[in-house]
Amino acid sequence: MSLVQKWSTELRYQPYHEWPTDYLEKLKQTTNDSTWRLAFHIQPVTGLLNDPNGFSYFNGKWHVFYQSYPLGPVHGIKSWYHLTSENLVDWQDEGLAILPDGPYDSHGVYSGSALAVGDRLFLAYTGNVRDQDWQRHSFQLGAWLDNKNQIQKLSEPLIVNSPKGYTQEIRDPQIFIFNQQYYLIIGAQNEQEEGKILTYKSSDLVNWQCIGEMTFSDDLLGFMVECPNLIFIDNQAVLLFCPQGLDQKQLSYQNIYPNTYVVADGFDGETNTLNNPSSLKNLDEGFDVYATQAFNAPDGRALTISWIGLPEVGYPTDEEGWAHCLSLVKELTLKDGNLLQRPVKELEKLRLDHHSFNGTLSSVQKIYSPQENRYELQLDLDAAAQGTLTLFADDDTNLGLTLSFDTQNGTMTMNRENAGTPFAKEFGTSRTFKIPQRGLSLQIFVDHSVVEVFINQGEKVASARVFPKKGQTAILLEGTTGIFSGEYWTLRPMK
Amino acid sequence: MSLVQKWSTELRYQPYHEWPTDYLEKLKQTTNDSTWRLAFHIQPVTGLLNDPNGFSYFNGKWHVFYQSYPLGPVHGIKSWYHLTSENLVDWQDEGLAILPDGPYDSHGVYSGSALAVGDRLFLAYTGNVRDQDWQRHSFQLGAWLDNKNQIQKLSEPLIVNSPKGYTQEIRDPQIFIFNQQYYLIIGAQNEQEEGKILTYKSSDLVNWQCIGEMTFSDDLLGFMVECPNLIFIDNQAVLLFCPQGLDQKQLSYQNIYPNTYVVADGFDGETNTLNNPSSLKNLDEGFDVYATQAFNAPDGRALTISWIGLPEVGYPTDEEGWAHCLSLVKELTLKDGNLLQRPVKELEKLRLDHHSFNGTLSSVQKIYSPQENRYELQLDLDAAAQGTLTLFADDDTNLGLTLSFDTQNGTMTMNRENAGTPFAKEFGTSRTFKIPQRGLSLQIFVDHSVVEVFINQGEKVASARVFPKKGQTAILLEGTTGIFSGEYWTLRPMK
Repeated sequence: MSLVQKWSTELRYQPYHEWPTDYLEKLKQTTNDSTWRLAFHIQPVTGLLNDPNGFSYFNGKWHVFYQSYPLGPVHGIKSWYHLTSENLVDWQDEGLAILPDGPYDSHGVYSGSALAVGDRLFLAYTGNVRDQDWQRHSFQLGAWLDNKNQIQKLSEPLIVNSPKGYTQEIRDPQIFIFNQQYYLIIGAQNEQEEGKILTYKSSDLVNWQCIGEMTFSDDLLGFMVECPNLIFIDNQAVLLFCPQGLDQKQLSYQNIYPNTYVVADGFDGETNTLNNPSSLKNLDEGFDVYATQAFNAPDGRALTISWIGLPEVGYPTDEEGWAHCLSLVKELTLKDGNLLQRPVKELEKLRLDHHSFNGTLSSVQKIYSPQENRYELQLDLDAAAQGTLTLFADDDTNLGLTLSFDTQNGTMTMNRENAGTPFAKEFGTSRTFKIPQRGLSLQIFVDHSVVEVFINQGEKVASARVFPKKGQTAILLEGTTGIFSGEYWTLRPMK
Repeated sequence: MSLVQKWSTELRYQPYHEWPTDYLEKLKQTTNDSTWRLAFHIQPVTGLLNDPNGFSYFNGKWHVFYQSYPLGPVHGIKSWYHLTSENLVDWQDEGLAILPDGPYDSHGVYSGSALAVGDRLFLAYTGNVRDQDWQRHSFQLGAWLDNKNQIQKLSEPLIVNSPKGYTQEIRDPQIFIFNQQYYLIIGAQNEQEEGKILTYKSSDLVNWQCIGEMTFSDDLLGFMVECPNLIFIDNQAVLLFCPQGLDQKQLSYQNIYPNTYVVADGFDGETNTLNNPSSLKNLDEGFDVYATQAFNAPDGRALTISWIGLPEVGYPTDEEGWAHCLSLVKELTLKDGNLLQRPVKELEKLRLDHHSFNGTLSSVQKIYSPQENRYELQLDLDAAAQGTLTLFADDDTNLGLTLSFDTQNGTMTMNRENAGTPFAKEFGTSRTFKIPQRGLSLQIFVDHSVVEVFINQGEKVASARVFPKKGQTAILLEGTTGIFSGEYWTLRPMK
């Protein structure tokens, strides 16, 4: 049931307060009635969630914001929605934080980042304004959050216009400190419609000087780059970003847009160059990860959180008035120059009851049939293992989301063709990727309509939304060769 | 002529505004009449200057403060005095900045540091309060300087007491950012009366947690450590500090207290340890350098500025109502693990007319006899050179401050016994130190009553106050063997 028949541009840009109260009531109702609501992932109260913003540690708490359109499951006029946490697991709702109510963000408070600066949190974001001809004007804006979570927007933009030679497609500023200076990097498009990352420097967060395009790849990066994030791990630099329209010759991907990264020996802030960058790699081997935001936390960890959802793709919850969620928080490390992504250790706080299991792969065995899709599964397979793990499996048909593994040939396939309610079939229903030809370790988080699979202690991650029907909760394992052992924990909901 | 016969404690702590106007007028007069006033060094308008404080770059300018007692050449009740510069050479007087007018600094605004934080400059300093029994209570305090140079003190201290096991001798906080956290290091004394450096961490500059003593030397560091400064150069760490009462077995020095440093492979912020630290070394081979303050500037340079003056030592200008100056600004670099200190390149802006000279060392030759002791001298000597350079030389007696060099035996001696008005003889009138047995390069800045000698592109520095009599300006060179060449520039005064 859709509450709005047609989401006209006018409707999508109608001020929030002009919506009737009973509409919002109904929207809450359809959202809360959804069987696909999540237990321990950040999801919108109503409407649409997209990019995580302002992921940071400040005033003794973790902070994350997300792009919010609270009035429906569409990309309407955006705000920042705020959550805080003491443990990266339980998130407290702080409500809408930055609203599109200023002269430079009247048509959308778009994505950005946060940096704890003294006793305040500095927020940098993109404000969009549409003129009378509905032409887009992008401004990079700043705001201060104080220790009472009160926001004060700066009266003037940080950056008024794209530099000469670049279009108005410029957004998603990330601010960080490097060599005692403030840096801002931002996704941009040049007039030849090529995706670029521009770098700015400042000594006071207010006056910003463009120092040009960051050098980190000889490849063309499609027509636009979104959500650049530069972080530092053990003196190396990792750049995460989302190229749109990337040529498949440069990187194989099946999602509409990939979320990619390069690892470099370091960043030269003077020449604006990543030293000795790797080739482009996919951050996630699954279906739905985008707009990942990363920051170097004061405890020394490099942490990320992603949007699980993709631009321009429809999802089954659209019918229920809400869409998308954020990923779990992951810690990035480097091992021999390779990026590892692991769920943060704090997630162990979610674990309730615990079961161990082991056996030999053979015909279909039911590992467990939980009441609810709300669990963590650790599965270890030996070097000879060939088989399939099925999650969200239907007790009658045994169909569900499958993870087929072949450690002899070194491949894994995630397939959601037969899992729950189908969607996004135009972008393919399976993802195949390489795994090492040795023993395989899977750490899997399942939460009602999302699954995140961490392979070999984070060497790869595969994430997917899945929309199971009632009762589709079984965990099945089958195979032709190999032995397995594992553990299962029921996970508690977020507090 | 001394305006005050006896500087009682009561007089030294009398509020500034209670001094009669005509006293201040007379003080200005005696100060301005001094022939030892400096042309291109920072000096007090009246009274006493000691430690540099808050050396930083903020709001498009360089900032430095100094410890000021403006009413006389004694250690009376202290304030921070403020100067700004666009070029590190010409300094604009911004007047008294932090006054001893708060509940936590009523008996002295003592030394500290500054950190540009967003669009404000954070100042951290030690406030002293004397109770009714004249017992000292030390507080570590914070203040914000905005972009109009207005200061707002924080209402509560950053750190209220010394940690358990430490005395009230705790002062000179340096604040810096390391691994996305704020660090504060501070000179301290434990209850066994041993000098220590304590480290604190904060994520918001307001709440500080003590993480214990920094590990960087197995030696005892005398009874107190003052003015610790940790800076980072090419991923290495350099710790500058002033140990008081250091055993001569640990380091040979002749000044009442030395200004020392160690070079380490890096700083481990978790264990609070300097990795693989060098032995203690003297920062300056001369007579008067103390309380050096260092910071990592946003342009990538590690910059220092020192007090030229020592605690508990009398100087001839005391009779004229003023005392001490700051050094020129130096840039620190590392070469093969050795610290180099060079005058900042901007000092070339001071150069006016220019002369070259060269010759063979023999009996006394007059290199130049300037009108005024206000010049830069570059002198290069070959590997066989043995001889003496005399500065501030008297035309009749040829006596002055001597720099005797012997590149064959690798020694240099700075001797001020026969230079101008004698003082501080109890700490010796000469300083001898090693130089490499190869060609020697001296870059010397002479400014009326101070000389700073940079040896071999900053491998060593020797600084001294000298108080020449009228006409003692000649530059003499003599020797037994070796050839020399050099350049001379008259330097303009600071604008």
